[in-house]
Amino acid sequence: MALFGKNIDSLNELFISALKLAYYMENEIVDNLPNMIEKAGSPELKQALETHLDETKGQVERLLQVFEMHGVSPESESCPAIDGILKEGSSLTADAHGNVIDAAIIGAAQKVEHYEISSYGSLISWAKALGREDCASVLNKNLEEEKNADTKLTKLAEEGINRLAA
Amino acid sequence: MALFGKNIDSLNELFISALKLAYYMENEIVDNLPNMIEKAGSPELKQALETHLDETKGQVERLLQVFEMHGVSPESESCPAIDGILKEGSSLTADAHGNVIDAAIIGAAQKVEHYEISSYGSLISWAKALGREDCASVLNKNLEEEKNADTKLTKLAEEGINRLAA
Repeated sequence: MALFGKNIDSLNELFISALKLAYYMENEIVDNLPNMIEKAGSPELKQALETHLDETKGQVERLLQVFEMHGVSPESESCPAIDGILKEGSSLTADAHGNVIDAAIIGAAQKVEHYEISSYGSLISWAKALGREDCASVLNKNLEEEKNADTKLTKLAEEGINRLAA
Repeated sequence: MALFGKNIDSLNELFISALKLAYYMENEIVDNLPNMIEKAGSPELKQALETHLDETKGQVERLLQVFEMHGVSPESESCPAIDGILKEGSSLTADAHGNVIDAAIIGAAQKVEHYEISSYGSLISWAKALGREDCASVLNKNLEEEKNADTKLTKLAEEGINRLAA
């Protein structure tokens, strides 16, 4: 089942494929976050998601920078994983009502964050193995933002949103 | 876009929905891990994935235990997120050749691990908010195994597999 139908014969080719998937991922998140923001009830959650939308736009810029540093044309590779994660998230939040919506949004957003954390984890590890510490360093800025967003969402859930939903 | 087409009116209903998604997720992973094990070249990676397959079967049992503790019939809820993650992983590893396959497998497996980590993170947090410390404690055993599996994969990548692929 060669979805991408390419030959990946070197770690460099794997790195470039993963970079294209990450570029698609971040652009999809930019498109989908506004729906979550609109549905969110808690002003703190709305604000946290808005801040993360701004960060995500900056992350797209950093990915463009890495494409350029690595001498590769920026390109998106359609990514069934993030499509599935976003589909599941928007379905669950559409099914949720009242005070449960915010808890559902946080759960959905944290699934997105963890997918991003694993994507950047591999990209950074491969960039280092390829001797591209410069690319790894830029990608690490995105990784740190994802980890911080995840921590902030846990805090919001545990400091009130879960209690309100229960 | 109400994929699941249910009304989720309480945190308890959200918890049960997420439990059904997790049950589907673990069963799909039990079905898919043997392919990864077959493709893996490094004996250490093969061994790590085999150990995790055994753990995953135990995790299915723990989920059945949580269903029972919570008085709910065990049921799977089809989960487009894990479907997408597994599809992406098997496509990427099918495209990879030679020494790159193991690096691709590790990247794919860590995406699965992180999806599981976020799933259990939410489930545990919701169980606690519902006063179900007993369920949270069982779910936490699964979470710890996923985190350990993720750490072990990072170690395997950084201690040799990435260098070999580069």
